Amino acid sequence: MADYSYETEIDVRLRDIDFMGHVNNAVYATYLEQAREAYFRDVLGISLEETTTVLVSLEIEYERPIEADETVTVALCASDLGESSLPMAYEIRADGKRAATARTVQVLAEPDGDGSRSIPDEWRRRIENRRD
Amino acid sequence: MADYSYETEIDVRLRDIDFMGHVNNAVYATYLEQAREAYFRDVLGISLEETTTVLVSLEIEYERPIEADETVTVALCASDLGESSLPMAYEIRADGKRAATARTVQVLAEPDGDGSRSIPDEWRRRIENRRD
Amino acid sequence: MADYSYETEIDVRLRDIDFMGHVNNAVYATYLEQAREAYFRDVLGISLEETTTVLVSLEIEYERPIEADETVTVALCASDLGESSLPMAYEIRADGKRAATARTVQVLAEPDGDGSRSIPDEWRRRIENRRD
Amino acid sequence: MADYSYETEIDVRLRDIDFMGHVNNAVYATYLEQAREAYFRDVLGISLEETTTVLVSLEIEYERPIEADETVTVALCASDLGESSLPMAYEIRADGKRAATARTVQVLAEPDGDGSRSIPDEWRRRIENRRD
Repeated sequence: MADYSYETEIDVRLRDIDFMGHVNNAVYATYLEQAREAYFRDVLGISLEETTTVLVSLEIEYERPIEADETVTVALCASDLGESSLPMAYEIRADGKRAATARTVQVLAEPDGDGSRSIPDEWRRRIENRRD
Repeated sequence: MADYSYETEIDVRLRDIDFMGHVNNAVYATYLEQAREAYFRDVLGISLEETTTVLVSLEIEYERPIEADETVTVALCASDLGESSLPMAYEIRADGKRAATARTVQVLAEPDGDGSRSIPDEWRRRIENRRD
Repeated sequence: MADYSYETEIDVRLRDIDFMGHVNNAVYATYLEQAREAYFRDVLGISLEETTTVLVSLEIEYERPIEADETVTVALCASDLGESSLPMAYEIRADGKRAATARTVQVLAEPDGDGSRSIPDEWRRRIENRRD
Repeated sequence: MADYSYETEIDVRLRDIDFMGHVNNAVYATYLEQAREAYFRDVLGISLEETTTVLVSLEIEYERPIEADETVTVALCASDLGESSLPMAYEIRADGKRAATARTVQVLAEPDGDGSRSIPDEWRRRIENRRD
């Protein structure tokens, strides 16, 4: 089972809400992106915008709808790092209760976007420390 | 292998493009939603907005980035229908070449959103006919 | 000159950033909507979602681009209330400096969306108090 | 009165619809951007992405809500061109009837975004011809 060692709050926007009064399914992917950005900043000490990563896969399981007035957080952990791939597992929580789970795999790429790049040892240490 | 019997064009917006000049990863989920909506209208003869369906899972594999000036289509097929679940497989194409593959599962729900509902025989016939 | 008596922080998303690396022009309108929602909650003590208001006009003057890593706040004030119209003036600030100004007019409507409704005295008192 | 000499269709997305079942107010600004992009391509023969323009102002008057199933077009005209400023007037139509009017001013900028640039004579000719 995933051991979520990091959690960040998401500011739900009225614009995220669909015609049925719930957060639109595609917006969950944006919440995950926001959570990755916060994790990169807080745990790795770098800006996701200044790092060339490529998202290679995304999986979301929707368990219950998120209402407009609920407080949303995303808990996440990174584990099973490959040479250049950075898998993450997530739990999207609404008012503290699980509303969805998700997984992504990012690959660290060369600044020009061509070819993959090894994950720096410093990142591995920081990710490791976060989990302990 | 999925036999994509339906294809619809997506109107890429400047707003879909991220800071790296590519279609943002979360926007792919919106393209899939647009494709489902078109499929419901063209194949099932109903409006997705007027039908209560709940998305239960979403998986996307990103193969290559989509540029702002590429023509995007989504090919999709429905198969392995359950009692109330409607799985779909997709191929997102940019300038005719595969850029991503995806799968979703929707569940047909009662109009009030509580409890699942059997997929009507008429839908099964139309989906079947589309595939032949 | 507008006397901005209320200010709220906006959580800028990576998804808000356009291909030129700035907050997309249409997203400013979403930031204004978020600011209105916060103002309704904090000053009027009600939820914008539970109130039927209709936006009748929007004006934005863009003074300088907002970068992805800037802290964005929206300052706003309500003034010149009509019988059912609620005009607001805004200043969008990035890292504390003005990046745009804006004005909107909302009209308070009957719950069914048909016909306008008088602004309650309680709201007028609260808006007045906020300004003093 | 504006003489709208150009019109383009907008592909309304389910994601554009808000919790009240109408196109969200901020999305109108995205429709205008789409219309500008189409105008640049069809009338000026260039891509908006490859041109450095800066939006300096936006005004929208909302006349009636747009429903999810309406066909949306944006009619627009460019007039009163300045040395480097390109004002445009718009009519957003739903099922052929006016739903909103809008005005924007863009300024043509140097490729690095600093300083304005004169509108090329070729553009002026094409805009002029479109109006006749």
